[in-house]
Amino acid sequence: MNFCSDNVTGCAPEILEALARANQGPAMPYGDDALTAKVERRIAELFEHDVAVFLVATGSSANALALSCLTPPFGAIYSHPAAHVAVDECGAPEFYSGGAKMVGVPGAHGKIAAAELDQVLAASGRGMVHHVQAASVSLSQATEAGTIYRPDEIAAIGEVARRHHVRLHMDGARFANALVAQNVSPADLTWRSGVDVLSFGASKNGAMAAEAVVFFDKSLAAEMPYRRKRGGHLFSKMRFLAAQFDAYLKDELWLRHARHANAEARRLSEGLAKLPGARLLHPVEANEIFIALPEPIISGLEQAGFKFYRWTEEGPGILRLVTAFNTDPQHVTEFVKTAERLARK
Amino acid sequence: MNFCSDNVTGCAPEILEALARANQGPAMPYGDDALTAKVERRIAELFEHDVAVFLVATGSSANALALSCLTPPFGAIYSHPAAHVAVDECGAPEFYSGGAKMVGVPGAHGKIAAAELDQVLAASGRGMVHHVQAASVSLSQATEAGTIYRPDEIAAIGEVARRHHVRLHMDGARFANALVAQNVSPADLTWRSGVDVLSFGASKNGAMAAEAVVFFDKSLAAEMPYRRKRGGHLFSKMRFLAAQFDAYLKDELWLRHARHANAEARRLSEGLAKLPGARLLHPVEANEIFIALPEPIISGLEQAGFKFYRWTEEGPGILRLVTAFNTDPQHVTEFVKTAERLARK
Amino acid sequence: MNFCSDNVTGCAPEILEALARANQGPAMPYGDDALTAKVERRIAELFEHDVAVFLVATGSSANALALSCLTPPFGAIYSHPAAHVAVDECGAPEFYSGGAKMVGVPGAHGKIAAAELDQVLAASGRGMVHHVQAASVSLSQATEAGTIYRPDEIAAIGEVARRHHVRLHMDGARFANALVAQNVSPADLTWRSGVDVLSFGASKNGAMAAEAVVFFDKSLAAEMPYRRKRGGHLFSKMRFLAAQFDAYLKDELWLRHARHANAEARRLSEGLAKLPGARLLHPVEANEIFIALPEPIISGLEQAGFKFYRWTEEGPGILRLVTAFNTDPQHVTEFVKTAERLARK
Amino acid sequence: MNFCSDNVTGCAPEILEALARANQGPAMPYGDDALTAKVERRIAELFEHDVAVFLVATGSSANALALSCLTPPFGAIYSHPAAHVAVDECGAPEFYSGGAKMVGVPGAHGKIAAAELDQVLAASGRGMVHHVQAASVSLSQATEAGTIYRPDEIAAIGEVARRHHVRLHMDGARFANALVAQNVSPADLTWRSGVDVLSFGASKNGAMAAEAVVFFDKSLAAEMPYRRKRGGHLFSKMRFLAAQFDAYLKDELWLRHARHANAEARRLSEGLAKLPGARLLHPVEANEIFIALPEPIISGLEQAGFKFYRWTEEGPGILRLVTAFNTDPQHVTEFVKTAERLARK
Repeated sequence: MNFCSDNVTGCAPEILEALARANQGPAMPYGDDALTAKVERRIAELFEHDVAVFLVATGSSANALALSCLTPPFGAIYSHPAAHVAVDECGAPEFYSGGAKMVGVPGAHGKIAAAELDQVLAASGRGMVHHVQAASVSLSQATEAGTIYRPDEIAAIGEVARRHHVRLHMDGARFANALVAQNVSPADLTWRSGVDVLSFGASKNGAMAAEAVVFFDKSLAAEMPYRRKRGGHLFSKMRFLAAQFDAYLKDELWLRHARHANAEARRLSEGLAKLPGARLLHPVEANEIFIALPEPIISGLEQAGFKFYRWTEEGPGILRLVTAFNTDPQHVTEFVKTAERLARK
Repeated sequence: MNFCSDNVTGCAPEILEALARANQGPAMPYGDDALTAKVERRIAELFEHDVAVFLVATGSSANALALSCLTPPFGAIYSHPAAHVAVDECGAPEFYSGGAKMVGVPGAHGKIAAAELDQVLAASGRGMVHHVQAASVSLSQATEAGTIYRPDEIAAIGEVARRHHVRLHMDGARFANALVAQNVSPADLTWRSGVDVLSFGASKNGAMAAEAVVFFDKSLAAEMPYRRKRGGHLFSKMRFLAAQFDAYLKDELWLRHARHANAEARRLSEGLAKLPGARLLHPVEANEIFIALPEPIISGLEQAGFKFYRWTEEGPGILRLVTAFNTDPQHVTEFVKTAERLARK
Repeated sequence: MNFCSDNVTGCAPEILEALARANQGPAMPYGDDALTAKVERRIAELFEHDVAVFLVATGSSANALALSCLTPPFGAIYSHPAAHVAVDECGAPEFYSGGAKMVGVPGAHGKIAAAELDQVLAASGRGMVHHVQAASVSLSQATEAGTIYRPDEIAAIGEVARRHHVRLHMDGARFANALVAQNVSPADLTWRSGVDVLSFGASKNGAMAAEAVVFFDKSLAAEMPYRRKRGGHLFSKMRFLAAQFDAYLKDELWLRHARHANAEARRLSEGLAKLPGARLLHPVEANEIFIALPEPIISGLEQAGFKFYRWTEEGPGILRLVTAFNTDPQHVTEFVKTAERLARK
Repeated sequence: MNFCSDNVTGCAPEILEALARANQGPAMPYGDDALTAKVERRIAELFEHDVAVFLVATGSSANALALSCLTPPFGAIYSHPAAHVAVDECGAPEFYSGGAKMVGVPGAHGKIAAAELDQVLAASGRGMVHHVQAASVSLSQATEAGTIYRPDEIAAIGEVARRHHVRLHMDGARFANALVAQNVSPADLTWRSGVDVLSFGASKNGAMAAEAVVFFDKSLAAEMPYRRKRGGHLFSKMRFLAAQFDAYLKDELWLRHARHANAEARRLSEGLAKLPGARLLHPVEANEIFIALPEPIISGLEQAGFKFYRWTEEGPGILRLVTAFNTDPQHVTEFVKTAERLARK
C-alpha cells in the first residue's frame, strides 16, 4: 500500500523475462548487438521518424545528456521552476553542460505557457556578451504536477522556441502516462509539435532501469556518443538495456501499464476529492495526485499503514500520491474507504 | 567461441535469479531499501573494514566518481599510460573531476613501479602554482596487460602515495581475477596495502551491470552522494543493483567465476605458447592473454570462426584473448587444437 | 557628459603615476615582488584583520574565483536575482565552480533580507541528495539598485548564513561607494558582520583594472592560488596590479573618489527628483540613480548630447545614471538644468 | 642583472605613454571604443588577413580561451610535452575546454615533428567512442627550448592537422622573437602555414599585460565572446589593453624589442659556449638559452649577483638564461666576463 512514487515498484514480469531471454550466448558490447539495433528500429517506427537513439539507465542521465547536446556551457536552459531537471537532479544539467544556467519559467499546474516563455526569451539578452545565451527549453511530460501538455500547447511552445533559436527537449520520464491520457500518437506529442529530443522513460512505468534518449533532429546527436561514454553511461552489456525496451514496447505493454496507472490515479483522486475538506491542487491527468486533506485524515491514513509523501513544499496538509503500472486496485479502494471512514469520525 | 572480452558475456543465472527475487513488492528508492543495506554490510565484512559503499552500474562511472572524490579540478591523477581510466573512458576522470590531468607513469607489463612513481611525484611541483597538483594514483587490478599487483607491490606504491600526500585508488574491474590469482584476502589487496578507494567490479565477472565504489577512508566519501546523483548514477530502483552484488558475493560465486576464467586463460595461454613463433607479451596472471602468433595461424583462427581482437596498438600479429566466468572449456580446447593444426600446415 | 557607467571613465592620474613608478628595474613575477607584499600588508591593516589577498584585474574574475572557493560543483549560490554575479557575468560563477546553481533570493531595492534568506535556506534540502547543496551567499555592496547594506543588515544575513552552514561573499565592486555612504569602517562592513570573502573593487572607482579578493577566513583560500592560475588570472607582471592598489589606498584616494561620486549622484538625483513626473525607483545611497522621467525629457536629454542607459528591464521611461570618481560637477549641473528646461516645455 | 625571465621586466616607456594617452575622457566599455577597433584593424593589416581579434591580459587566458574554441570537452589537444599549455598553466586548457586531455607529442629541442604528429593522430582512435577525440594541436613559437618553427615546418604540421581534421593553434607568447629570427612575414608564420588561431603575445616583449587572440578562421570565433566574458577576461576599460597593442605595433616597436632580445641572447650564448665544460642544450634561436656549465661557474655567477634559474628539470648544472627587450648589453658583457674569469680559476 505504497503510494510514495512510481519508482518504489519493481519491474514487470515481461521485462524480467526479456532479460533472461537476452542472456543467451555472447553479444558484442557497447551497443554493437542485434537487440540494440532492433530496439532502435522499433523506436523509429513508433515515432514514425528517423531517429538517433541512445539507451541509458537513469532519467537524470537521459535528461542531462540530452540537454548537454543542446546547450553550450554559456547557455541557458528554460524549464518550469518545479521541473525535475531544475530541482531534483542535484545539478546534473549544469554538470553535463559544463556550467549552463537553469532559468525558471513559472506557470500554473507545472506547465510553461508559450506566451510567458516568449516574453522571457525576448528579454534574455540574445547576443549580449554579459548574459548567458538562451539555448534550450525542457518540458516535463507528464509534469511534476501530474498534468500533461497537449500537442497544441507543445506546438505553441515549439514555435516560440524556434523563433528564438532555442531547442526543445522533453523530459518524458512519464511519457507513457501523458500519451495514454489523450488520443494522440507519440509523433504528435514530440517532433510533430516541435520537440527536438525526448528522454523516453521506461523505468517509472515497469522497466528495471531503462531510458532512451531519442533525437528527432539527428544532427544534434553528433556529440552524444562521446558524452554518454564520458559520463559513464555507455553500458558494456547494452543488450540488457535493449531487452527492457524490447519488452516494454512489445504488445503495447507500456501503454497498458500507463493506462492502468492513470486509471487508478483517477479512481483514487475521485474518491478522495469528495471528502469534506479535500482539495485537489492540480487536475489529475496522469498518475500523480496532489491533494489537500484534513490533518486527521492524513495521520489516520499513515497509522493505517498507507505510505505516501507529505508534500510540505506546497504547504502543510498536502499529500502526493502516485500510482503505478502495478498498483493493486484493492489498495486504491482501501485507501479511499479508509479516508472516508476517517472523514466520518 | 568469442574471446573478444569478458563483457561479451551475459550474466550468471544466479544473478538473474537474484533480480527476480528482488522483484517482490515495493521498496523505497535510491538505496533506502533493505537489500542495499545488506549488501553494504556484506562488503564491509568481506573487506574486514568499516566502509562507505556506493553502487553504480558501469566501471567508468565507478572510476570517475571515485577519482573525483580524491582529486580537485587542478589536480593530477597518476596511472599507467595504458590504464582504462587513461585511455578507454573518453575522458571520464577529466569530466568528473572538473578538468584534472591524467599523468602517465610507464612501467613494464601494465604496472607502475613504486620507485618510478616516487620520482615522478617528487618532480611534480607540489605547491608550485603553475603546475597541476598531484592528488591521486590509480592502479588497475588486474592490469590492462593481464598482470596483477601483489600486496607488497601495492603497499610500496601506497607508501609512496602517502609520503607525497596523494590518495590511492584501485580500478578493480577485474578485482576478483586478481584476487584468486594469489593466496591473499580482499583486505590484503586493498586497505592493508594502502588503497583508499576501490572500484569493485562485478559486471565483467558475471553480473549484468553492477559495480561498487568502496571507500576505506570514509571521510573521502563526503561528496560522493551528490556526485553520484549529479552524474546521473543514482538508481531509483537501487535494489536491482544490490541484488546483483548480493548474489555475486554469495557462496563465493564471484571467486568461483574468477577461478574459472583464470584457469581457462592459463590453459589457453599454455597451449598457444608452445606453438612455433608464439610469444606471450606479458605473463598471464589473470584472464587476459596478449600473444604474438604467426599471421597464418591468426587468419586461420578467424576463418574457423573464433572471435577475438587483433591488438594492433602493440603491433601486427598480436592478439588479445579474454576468458570469462562462463567460458566453455570446450572452446578453449578447440581454439588450441585449431591453432596447433594451423601451425603444422 | 557620459553617465552610462562608472566604467566609461579612464583612471586617476595617481594610478597612472603609480604604474610609472612601479616600472623601475626588474621584479620577480607572479606576485613575488615587494610591491605586492606591501599591498597585501596594507589591505590587512585597512581591514584590521589577518587576510589572504589575491589581486586580479576584473570584477567578474574576482567574484567567480571567490565563489569557487566557497562552493562545490553541486552547491548553490544565493544572491539577489538582479545581482551582477547572477545576470551580468555570462555564467562565470557556474563556470568557475564547476556547475553550481545560482539561486535568486528576491528583495526590495536590490537587497536580500535576512528573514527571506532564512526561509529559502531552510527549504533548500540540506543533506538531500536530489538537491544542490546550499553553499554560499553573495551580497552586492553597493547593490545593483544603487542601495547599500548597513552593518546590522549584513550581520543579520551573516548570522543566517552561519546557522545554515553557508559562507558569505561580498561583491564589493562598489565597496568604496557603500563605505563612504555611512560612518563605518571597512572591518564593520565585512568580517565584523560575518563576511568571509570580499571582492574588493578598484576598477570602477579610479583604477585601470584592479580588484583584490580578500579572504578574512584564510582557510578558505587554500585552493585560490591554483584556481587563479588555472583561470588565467595570475599576472606575470603582478607589480602593475599592486601599484594600482598602492595608489588607490594611499592618502585616502579611494575614499575621496567615492565621496565625490556619491555626492554628485546625490546632487543629480535631488535635482531630477523635483521634476514633474519624476520618480526615483530606489533610494540613491551610492553612485547610481534609477529614475523614471517623462519621455520628452529623456529624449531631450539624449538630443542634448547626454549619454546614459535607458533601463528597459525595469520598464519604459526609466534611466540609469551613474556618477564616478571623476564626474565633472559642471556636467551634473548642466544635466539637471537641461532636464528642468525640458520639463518646462 | 636579472636573466630569470622576460617577465621580470617592466614595460616599455612607449607603452606607458600610450596608457596615459588613452586616459582621455570617457570611452564605451568592453571593447566598444575606438582604440580597440583601431587595434583590430591594425592586426588585420599586419597579418594581411581578415581576422577576429580578442584582447586579454595574460598568456594563459589567451591560450586556454583559444583552445576552448577548438576543442570539445571530450577532445584531445596535442602539444610538445614541455609546452607551456601542457605544464605551466595549472591545467588552464583542461579547465576552459571543460575537461579535454592534453596529449604530449615528443620531439627534439621543444619542437613537434610533422611525421611524429601524423603517427600519433593516426593512432588516436578517431570516431571510437572510448577515446577522447583529436581536436587541436598547439605549437609554441618560440618554443620552451628557445627554438623556432620555420614556415615549412609549420606548414607540414598544418597539413597533417588538416588531414586529421584537427585545428592548429600557435602559442605566440614569444611570437615576435620567433618572427625576427627569420626573414618572413607574420602571415608566413601563421595562416599561410595553416595556423587557425594565434595567441599573439606582447606581455613578454615590452607590454604591461596584453595578449591578442587572433582567429584567422573567423568561424571558429563564434563562441569566443561568451567564453572570454565567462572566464572573467573581458576588460571593462578595454582601451587600456588596446593602447598597449597600439604602441606595441607602432613604428615596429615590437620588432625592435625582439631583435634586441634575440641579439643579446646570441651574444650571451656565444660568449658562454666557448667556456670549457659549457654545452648548449638547444640551438639559441630566440631569446632563451639553456646551457650546461661547470658548477663552480654557476655558483660563482650567483655569488656575483646574477639572477637566473637553475633548470633542474633538465638535470644538475643547467641554467636557463632569458634576455628581454630591455636587457642591458652591459649586463650581458659582464655576465660573460664574470663567467670567463670563473672558468680560469
